[in-house]
Amino acid sequence: MTVHLVGAGPGAADLLTIRAARLLRSCDVCCYDRLVDHSVLDIVNPCAEMIDVGKTKGRSSSQELINELLVALGREHETVVRLKGGDPFVFGRGAEELAALVAAGVDCEVVPGITSAFSAPLAAGIPVTHRGVSRGVLVVTGHAMEGASVDFTSLANEHLTLVVLMGVEHRGAIADQLIGAGLSRATPVAVIERAFSLHERITRSSLDQLGSLEVRSPAVMVIGAVAAFDAEARSLSALAVGAE
Amino acid sequence: MTVHLVGAGPGAADLLTIRAARLLRSCDVCCYDRLVDHSVLDIVNPCAEMIDVGKTKGRSSSQELINELLVALGREHETVVRLKGGDPFVFGRGAEELAALVAAGVDCEVVPGITSAFSAPLAAGIPVTHRGVSRGVLVVTGHAMEGASVDFTSLANEHLTLVVLMGVEHRGAIADQLIGAGLSRATPVAVIERAFSLHERITRSSLDQLGSLEVRSPAVMVIGAVAAFDAEARSLSALAVGAE
Repeated sequence: MTVHLVGAGPGAADLLTIRAARLLRSCDVCCYDRLVDHSVLDIVNPCAEMIDVGKTKGRSSSQELINELLVALGREHETVVRLKGGDPFVFGRGAEELAALVAAGVDCEVVPGITSAFSAPLAAGIPVTHRGVSRGVLVVTGHAMEGASVDFTSLANEHLTLVVLMGVEHRGAIADQLIGAGLSRATPVAVIERAFSLHERITRSSLDQLGSLEVRSPAVMVIGAVAAFDAEARSLSALAVGAE
Repeated sequence: MTVHLVGAGPGAADLLTIRAARLLRSCDVCCYDRLVDHSVLDIVNPCAEMIDVGKTKGRSSSQELINELLVALGREHETVVRLKGGDPFVFGRGAEELAALVAAGVDCEVVPGITSAFSAPLAAGIPVTHRGVSRGVLVVTGHAMEGASVDFTSLANEHLTLVVLMGVEHRGAIADQLIGAGLSRATPVAVIERAFSLHERITRSSLDQLGSLEVRSPAVMVIGAVAAFDAEARSLSALAVGAE
């Protein structure tokens, strides 16, 4: 009688962890999100009950209902998998579900997954950190939270890589704020749509052009010097890396 | 004739991706790091040549030699795995190896892994982001880079979670800088040693005590309100999360 909060990773089924795949193949019930790829759902135990709890825009008040559903399922079934795109604890609201389960006395295990925050850039040949270029990486969401839009002015830092999840809709405002806060208009940006899927699409540009790029969600935006790197490493090898 | 730069994840063998496990089971040569767990090495093709390229302190000038080794191996063998703890592109210097391989005309594929930056906190029940508590997560290293120590004063932000890798040695100085930059002395901290291993150890405290904690590397430090959360979700459920 355990609910497993499982990270589905970036999309491709073979980028699931072995632990996640084992749970999917043996679960009695699988509750999954809108962002989970069909190739991942294909490996779920064919006898398991499948429940789509994907939240779409305008229906986002359903987190409370999802929590109640998980508690009810956890009391009834041996192995329940709550499958989330990426990692359950990186903008996944997994901790809210964990808290609801714990409060209800239902056993819960959390299984990490590969977050799209780092793997989408990797798919484009972009390391989120790189010696001599980026000292760290900041991951934020671009969508409004708690009714207030995110303030990006305090996040401008030329020594860091900025990765924005769920920010495509507000990309123009985000770019304006970052430029207003002092980031160069020429700062490289890359937008990675549907990483690791057949529909993967990578768009490279500069910060001042971000607002006018034709890109669609779901996508990951990378802002910073490393965004100029590509899988052929042309830009990368051209950049001096300091000798150790 | 391909060199695969493969993320080994946080340690437990079943937290490898399916893609990584498949490559390990079929490779001809496996070059591995000091940080890769033995349980992961146990699944490598028993006929493969094993090469320990782990860099230890005082021997860190060897990146150039590793690059040359990978180029030579990639020209000689069908399937070479370069196995790195966590993810190859998150402080893994994978991009430097990719650049060297590309420059030498050797085919290279990068396979993402679960980074300890997010999974070590998860092992402690800590979500690196949480609605109403943390708007984003900043990942940095605490060790000196390019000869200069990292300046943490510009990284103090009470709305973000700060995850510090390789920072145990400098934890006192890091705490001092963050407090000096305005972060509360009472800011929760958690230090996770050897996450997902039998020797996993979690120490919780506050920022002003960080310098005097008895902890050892390798460890991941989490600084911010979410560090008060635990796997039993006691702290978590006590924290108000804003209604959507």
